[in-house]
Amino acid sequence: MCLSNFPPFNLLLHHLTFFLRGDRRRHLRGAGDMASIAVPDPTPPPALDAENIRKAVQGWGTDEKKLIEILGRRTAAQRAAIAREYARLYNESLLDRLHSELSGDFRSTMMLWTVDPAERDAKLVNKALRRKDDNFALRKTDEHYIWVIVEVACASSPDHLMAVRKAYCSKFSSSLEEDVASCSYKDPIRQFLVGLVSSYRYTDDYVDEGLAKSEATELCNAIRKKQPHHEDVLRIISLRNKSQLKATFKHYKQDFGKAIDEDIESYGSSLFSRVLRAAVLCLGFPEKHFAEVIRYSIQGLGTDEGTLTRAIVSRAEIDMNNIKEVYKIMYNTTLTREVTGDTSGFYKDILLTLIGSEE
Amino acid sequence: MCLSNFPPFNLLLHHLTFFLRGDRRRHLRGAGDMASIAVPDPTPPPALDAENIRKAVQGWGTDEKKLIEILGRRTAAQRAAIAREYARLYNESLLDRLHSELSGDFRSTMMLWTVDPAERDAKLVNKALRRKDDNFALRKTDEHYIWVIVEVACASSPDHLMAVRKAYCSKFSSSLEEDVASCSYKDPIRQFLVGLVSSYRYTDDYVDEGLAKSEATELCNAIRKKQPHHEDVLRIISLRNKSQLKATFKHYKQDFGKAIDEDIESYGSSLFSRVLRAAVLCLGFPEKHFAEVIRYSIQGLGTDEGTLTRAIVSRAEIDMNNIKEVYKIMYNTTLTREVTGDTSGFYKDILLTLIGSEE
Repeated sequence: MCLSNFPPFNLLLHHLTFFLRGDRRRHLRGAGDMASIAVPDPTPPPALDAENIRKAVQGWGTDEKKLIEILGRRTAAQRAAIAREYARLYNESLLDRLHSELSGDFRSTMMLWTVDPAERDAKLVNKALRRKDDNFALRKTDEHYIWVIVEVACASSPDHLMAVRKAYCSKFSSSLEEDVASCSYKDPIRQFLVGLVSSYRYTDDYVDEGLAKSEATELCNAIRKKQPHHEDVLRIISLRNKSQLKATFKHYKQDFGKAIDEDIESYGSSLFSRVLRAAVLCLGFPEKHFAEVIRYSIQGLGTDEGTLTRAIVSRAEIDMNNIKEVYKIMYNTTLTREVTGDTSGFYKDILLTLIGSEE
Repeated sequence: MCLSNFPPFNLLLHHLTFFLRGDRRRHLRGAGDMASIAVPDPTPPPALDAENIRKAVQGWGTDEKKLIEILGRRTAAQRAAIAREYARLYNESLLDRLHSELSGDFRSTMMLWTVDPAERDAKLVNKALRRKDDNFALRKTDEHYIWVIVEVACASSPDHLMAVRKAYCSKFSSSLEEDVASCSYKDPIRQFLVGLVSSYRYTDDYVDEGLAKSEATELCNAIRKKQPHHEDVLRIISLRNKSQLKATFKHYKQDFGKAIDEDIESYGSSLFSRVLRAAVLCLGFPEKHFAEVIRYSIQGLGTDEGTLTRAIVSRAEIDMNNIKEVYKIMYNTTLTREVTGDTSGFYKDILLTLIGSEE
C-alpha cells in the first residue's frame, strides 16, 4: 500500500502542495470567461477550507473577512464540497452556522451564495410567488417579483432550470409550474410565465435562418399591432432555444430597424409588455437585463438590497464580467463605483468580491 | 493484490457462480411488483450475455429463441449494460446487429425493447408527430398517434418524462414541447398536449383532500356543461401530481356518482374529449388505458402491430401484471390468449415473454 492512499496523509500532502505553491489567484475559467469570481490556483482542499471557516466562526467574534475570502472565491461545486466537509467534520450545517453567526444583508448574501444554486433559485421563486399571494397590491416595485420568475426561467441554462424544478418540488410539495399557474397574476401573464418555467429549451448551436427571419416578422407584426400577447409571440418566446432566438432577434433589428426590446417598450406600456421585454432580454441579452436590474436596485431613494444581492449572487459565476462592461456603456459609471457608493461594511465587501476586478 | 480484483478472473468467478447457482427465474422486483418480465436469479454478468448474443447472431442463421431468452428477461439497466459490453467486445452496435439480423415485427419489437427507454419514447413521439405532419387526414386510427404523446406524458414517471425530453432534444434538434406546439393538431388539443409534455409533476404521497374535493367539482361542472376544454380542466389535468389527481378522481366518483372517464365519454364525443379521457386514464388508471389500447390493436380486421408492440414493450417493466388483471375483467379473456390468437412466430414469442405468465 502506498502512503498517498492513506486519507490523512493524502490531506496533508494537499495542504503542503497548497502552501508551497502559494495562493496565486486567477479568474475562474470553469464557468466561462464571463464569470467574475477569482478562484485561487491551486484551490485549497475542501477540508482545509472547512477548517478555516470553523476557526472564523468559533469563539468570541466572527472573522467575516475570512469567510468572504474563502467562500467568495470558490465555485458552486467547491462551496458544496466545503459544506459537505464542514458537516462531516463538525457535525453541524454550515448554512445553519452562517445563519446564527451573521446578520442583515451580509448574512442573506452569504447564505444565498453558499446554498446550492438550484435550491437558491427555487427558494427565490417561491418567495416571489408567495409575495404576490400575500395580496399586496401590484405596485411598481412588485414587478420585480415577476422578474425573479422570468430570470430563473429564461436566463438559466435548460439543465439548471430543470434542477430548480426538481428542487422546488422537493422543498415545497408542489411543482413550480403548478404554483405559477395558481398564483394571482392575471392571464396572459400567468399563462406566459407557466410556459416559460415549463420549457426545456435544448442547447444547440444550429440555427434555422429561414425560421428566424419568418418568426422575426411574426413577432414584429404582433408587437407593432399592439398585440404583444398574441399566441405566436407566446409560442416563439416560450419554446424556441436561445441560439434560434438570438438569430430571430438579430433579424428583427436588421429587417425592421429597431431592436425588439426597444420596440416592445415603445409600442406598449402594459405590465404584460414589460414582462415580455424582461423575458426577451433574459433570453437574448441577459447582461442588459441584469445591468438594468442592478441600476434599478441602486437608483432612487434607498437601495433595494434584495434585488441587488439576487442579481450579483446569481450572475457572479455566469456573466458578471459582461454585465460590468454593459453597465459601463449604459450608465457611464462602473458597477464597482455604484456598489461602493450604495452599500457598506461586510455586505459591501462580499458584493465587491463577487463582482471582481474592473479592468 | 487480491486475485478477485483482476478483471478476467473476476468475470470467471461471476460465470462460475452463475452456473453453480443455476438459472432460477424469478419475477422482477426492482421495477415494482407489477412488472411482468422474469429475470433469472442470479442474473448472468453482462459480458456473458453479450457473448451468448454474439453466438446467436453469428454464422449461418440466427438463434432467435436465444435472443428472446436473454434480452426478454433482463431489466432496462441490464439491457443497457449488455449493449455496452457487446459494443466493447465486438466493436459493433448491438442495435445495428439486431437490425441487420432480424426482420418484420419481431425486429421492431426487439429493437424497441433493447434501446434505452427514454430514447425509445422520444422516437415514438417524434414518429407520431411526423405522421400527423405528413398531412394524413385524421382518420379514426390516427387518434392513436395522439395517444402515444399522451401516454409518454401521463403514464410515465416525472423523471422518465424528463429523460425523454432530454433524449428528444439531442436526437431531433428541437424540443418535444416545441414540436408538439408546431404540430398540426388544432387548439385546444395542441395547447393541452403542450401542457402535458412540459409538466414536471412532483412525486409525493401527500394529498390535499379539500383541494381534491373542490377540483373534482370544478372538473364535473366543466365536463357536464360540455366544456371539457375549460381552462380549469386543462390546468388541473396538466399540472397536478398523480397522488393528488387520484384523490380528485375518487372524490369525483363518490360525490357525483360516476367515474370521471365514463362522464367524459357520455358528455362528449369530440376528439378533444377522447384525448382528455386518455390523459385522465393514463394519469389515474393507466392499466385501463393500456388494456383498451391492446384490445383496440387486436380487434377488428387485422392486427395493429405497431400499437400492440408499443403497449407491451413500454409497460412490461411497469404495470403489465396489472394490465393482465384488468384485461381479464374488462374483456373476459386473457391477454395471453388474445396475443396467441393474433400473432405468430418469434414476434408472438417475444410478446408472450414480455407479458409473462398468467396466474
